[in-house]
Amino acid sequence: MHISLFCSLIVTSTLHLTAFALWPKPRSLITGSFAIRLSSDFYISAVFPSVPQDLNSAISRTQSFLQNDKLGRLVVGRGSSDASAVRAAPELNSLALILSSNGFDAPDSIIKESQKSLKERDESYSLTVPLGSSQATLRANTTLGLFRGLTTFSQLWYDYEGDTYTLVAPIKIEDSPAFPYRGFMLDTARNFFPVSDVKRTLDAMSWAKINTFHWHVTDSQSFPLQVPGFLELSQAGAYSNNSVYSLDDVQDIVSYAGERGIDVLMEIDTPGHSSIIAASHPEHIACFEESPWSTFAGEPPAGQLRLASSSTTNFTASLLAAAASVLPSSMFSTGGDEINTNCYADDTQTQAELNATGRTLEQALNVFTQATHGALRQLGKAPVVWEEMVLEHNVTLGNDTVVMIWISSQDAAAVAAKGFQIVQSPSDYFYLDCGGGGWLGDDVLGNSSCDPFKSWQKAYSFDPFNNLTIEQRSLVLGGQQLLWAEQSGPENLDSIAWPRAAASAEVFWTGGTLNGTEALPRLHAHRFRMVNRGVRAIPLQPEWCALRPDACDATS
Amino acid sequence: MHISLFCSLIVTSTLHLTAFALWPKPRSLITGSFAIRLSSDFYISAVFPSVPQDLNSAISRTQSFLQNDKLGRLVVGRGSSDASAVRAAPELNSLALILSSNGFDAPDSIIKESQKSLKERDESYSLTVPLGSSQATLRANTTLGLFRGLTTFSQLWYDYEGDTYTLVAPIKIEDSPAFPYRGFMLDTARNFFPVSDVKRTLDAMSWAKINTFHWHVTDSQSFPLQVPGFLELSQAGAYSNNSVYSLDDVQDIVSYAGERGIDVLMEIDTPGHSSIIAASHPEHIACFEESPWSTFAGEPPAGQLRLASSSTTNFTASLLAAAASVLPSSMFSTGGDEINTNCYADDTQTQAELNATGRTLEQALNVFTQATHGALRQLGKAPVVWEEMVLEHNVTLGNDTVVMIWISSQDAAAVAAKGFQIVQSPSDYFYLDCGGGGWLGDDVLGNSSCDPFKSWQKAYSFDPFNNLTIEQRSLVLGGQQLLWAEQSGPENLDSIAWPRAAASAEVFWTGGTLNGTEALPRLHAHRFRMVNRGVRAIPLQPEWCALRPDACDATS
Repeated sequence: MHISLFCSLIVTSTLHLTAFALWPKPRSLITGSFAIRLSSDFYISAVFPSVPQDLNSAISRTQSFLQNDKLGRLVVGRGSSDASAVRAAPELNSLALILSSNGFDAPDSIIKESQKSLKERDESYSLTVPLGSSQATLRANTTLGLFRGLTTFSQLWYDYEGDTYTLVAPIKIEDSPAFPYRGFMLDTARNFFPVSDVKRTLDAMSWAKINTFHWHVTDSQSFPLQVPGFLELSQAGAYSNNSVYSLDDVQDIVSYAGERGIDVLMEIDTPGHSSIIAASHPEHIACFEESPWSTFAGEPPAGQLRLASSSTTNFTASLLAAAASVLPSSMFSTGGDEINTNCYADDTQTQAELNATGRTLEQALNVFTQATHGALRQLGKAPVVWEEMVLEHNVTLGNDTVVMIWISSQDAAAVAAKGFQIVQSPSDYFYLDCGGGGWLGDDVLGNSSCDPFKSWQKAYSFDPFNNLTIEQRSLVLGGQQLLWAEQSGPENLDSIAWPRAAASAEVFWTGGTLNGTEALPRLHAHRFRMVNRGVRAIPLQPEWCALRPDACDATS
Repeated sequence: MHISLFCSLIVTSTLHLTAFALWPKPRSLITGSFAIRLSSDFYISAVFPSVPQDLNSAISRTQSFLQNDKLGRLVVGRGSSDASAVRAAPELNSLALILSSNGFDAPDSIIKESQKSLKERDESYSLTVPLGSSQATLRANTTLGLFRGLTTFSQLWYDYEGDTYTLVAPIKIEDSPAFPYRGFMLDTARNFFPVSDVKRTLDAMSWAKINTFHWHVTDSQSFPLQVPGFLELSQAGAYSNNSVYSLDDVQDIVSYAGERGIDVLMEIDTPGHSSIIAASHPEHIACFEESPWSTFAGEPPAGQLRLASSSTTNFTASLLAAAASVLPSSMFSTGGDEINTNCYADDTQTQAELNATGRTLEQALNVFTQATHGALRQLGKAPVVWEEMVLEHNVTLGNDTVVMIWISSQDAAAVAAKGFQIVQSPSDYFYLDCGGGGWLGDDVLGNSSCDPFKSWQKAYSFDPFNNLTIEQRSLVLGGQQLLWAEQSGPENLDSIAWPRAAASAEVFWTGGTLNGTEALPRLHAHRFRMVNRGVRAIPLQPEWCALRPDACDATS
């Protein structure tokens, strides 16, 4: 506790002087005021047996970042005033990685740790960069914790003319996330993103310690996913043969994510947002491409799974199980948002099936949901749903169900009141696609469905416990920013997401409620570093402002 | 006249069937309904003597586009249904370029034609792609006209599995721009854009027949321009040594632009938007970095040229002349927007100089303007200013002055009423940076200064003669979209500008007033082509919509 207090005082008083480049901010940070620099033969070593391959890879990547980040300190002159102090500074020769809980067994890999359930995951670490010794120390209970610490270590350093240095040694960090779920959602169905774009996004996520890739992989417009036993869906429903995630691609993405501390939470949205399934299975889709689309769907094209059909229910449960069974995550999302009742009212077959079974549409939805969620539970997976499944429908959901808030941040309280675990994904804070103009034809007055643009400042101001009672707070697993891709593709993936999506990463790592003025210089530094690492994160201000903290505040 | 009428009927009836990929739309277009394809040894030749080097280069680039664009027709199946018709189609073997006015003298290069005054420039051309002959013909009065025709020719073709074809032969196009000025403005001062980014932007501009690069090169935040005799300005005022356009870079950009039919209209904004000049010449800047900035400037940092000082006036006139003298354009912009009177009221030196000369601030501004504009006229250049110089100040402007409307589209009428030539650049239609959130510090409620986002639909709906009398219409030289770079850099240059900035290109080529529903499929095609050519233009809709014209209209 004493350390914590000291830390926060230090943070407050020195951050503006040093323009720290850490993102997210560690939970506890003690710094000094001395320069040290990395020796030319600086190395990182794991000092325990049976080092997993993915930890060795992470060490190599960290070494590469230390050499190549070349992050000039964000002050006028970009560190030229530091040169003499740095030249005279003591050198740090190495970083030792220590696994606190290491026993006789070989430690689990980062991948394995990353894919454990949220409750079992341990991302904590402690990092000490001393002044009087030539070795820094990183300790953690898990390889995943060591990986998080490596990420932090790589963010401690500035470059000036080849010297890699900090001005605030000694440094002591004790760190662990406030929330177990810190996500980023990507919609790969409205427009397709090649595997290389997904991987680059996973890299960028890992640099901000985001640990969940919520992959909204299919939707009404396209089905770009190969599912074992259901290959016809992508064959007929992908935009082209080149716009498909093959079985190998999925494994590649899952591994790449896992090596970077990220679990892949896949979503196949049902029973809405599924029109394109009709391309290979017209028998399972009601109101397929019916017109006007606005009567039957939130956006074109219309078409939903025939939830009242036992055949369609079995098909959907099998499909979800087949997709989920090749994924290691403990969660899988069945969607459940924006179910359109006109579509079913208009569908002769659905009406006949409701009549035959004597069920209402809500009762049929419940049967459908029990079947699909049951299929996931048989695989040991917890179902994830959008908030309407709790707030708009009479469906029985298991208490393992995770509910994503999206319509409004105000809705979390009602979901929590029913006792469900929550992922905070509200459109009024976290939707990255808002404010980009309308996309429905040539409508001159059109605008995005969730105007205005959600700035980093807005996302950063989010209170994870907004509107919840103290008792309900434990239901919040975390949260995420989201990119719906009606107006996005590989061309603007980086620029629409970064550095904005790092805002929620810090909110849910630290726990919020935060100070944006303190954050902005660090976010600038994080953004410059992302650009140096090959992610096209955009400038948040003129460079003149980035080099002069507070000079461009609204009130200056 | 007969042709024109026939054309418009054809355009209306066939565009949706053929999903034409032309952008901007030619003024007169007659098409048939037959398939032809390019032969494997298709070639383009200029059939006149003394072909300028830059026209030969343009021919080579066109050949390369024909081979590499690989634009699949934007229909479901991406042209697979065309395959049999295309395989049986007659072949086109060549395109012949004919210079109608060719006399004994060698023709002027594209560069030279592109840099002539707006009145002297001739961009017209006619293009015939026959059915019964194996040779297409492109005629123009100038090499610049031939270049525009080559651009059109490269947009006629789709690709399916290596076959390059059209379905609408024969084709006859008579084309010329409705307005002589069709621009794109880039601010390279708030954030720096390397030469490669500027060149890629010039390529993208040329593909939409944009003919003016309005280069807002300096501003209060940075001075990235080497000016002969004034090298200290960039030495002290650029963000870094790497963030400078050297003398060679400027020539390189001017040549690259000229080869692509683009004139470079440079702007060094005065007397406002000039604070960074103080880094090397503090004697010339009033209220330098004064606080709070919001009292003294539209955005940080404060600082304006001491317009009442004869020394500063001479310095500024010399600076503008030195910058303008190395540029071939017949125009140069002295800016003149957002002059802040608090800054001068607060500046002891300015007040002393006003007292000594007995001038009001407005009278001093007039003296300053006569000096700076006079220096440009001595070089044979017409001055360009922002609208406040006409609407907010008592300044005598020559009738050669070109005035840019920016504050509101409503302001054009008042400027026209004073008899000045107009470039339509209004923020309510054409500012590409609007709607991206605020950038002043951590202001959670902040938003861009010109909310909301200006969609392509909004830009496309612009009427160039909005609010003008019939007599005033001849004053409209054209217009442009603009990118202010407070929140932009190389990372989002393409994605924030394209394909949106092609909207005004078509408005001012065709003359407006246009039909967005007809335009959208063509704009999709233009965007896919831009991506294939290496410009990261963003999707305007889900690909599902791009392949199904009208299916995603708001009213469908």
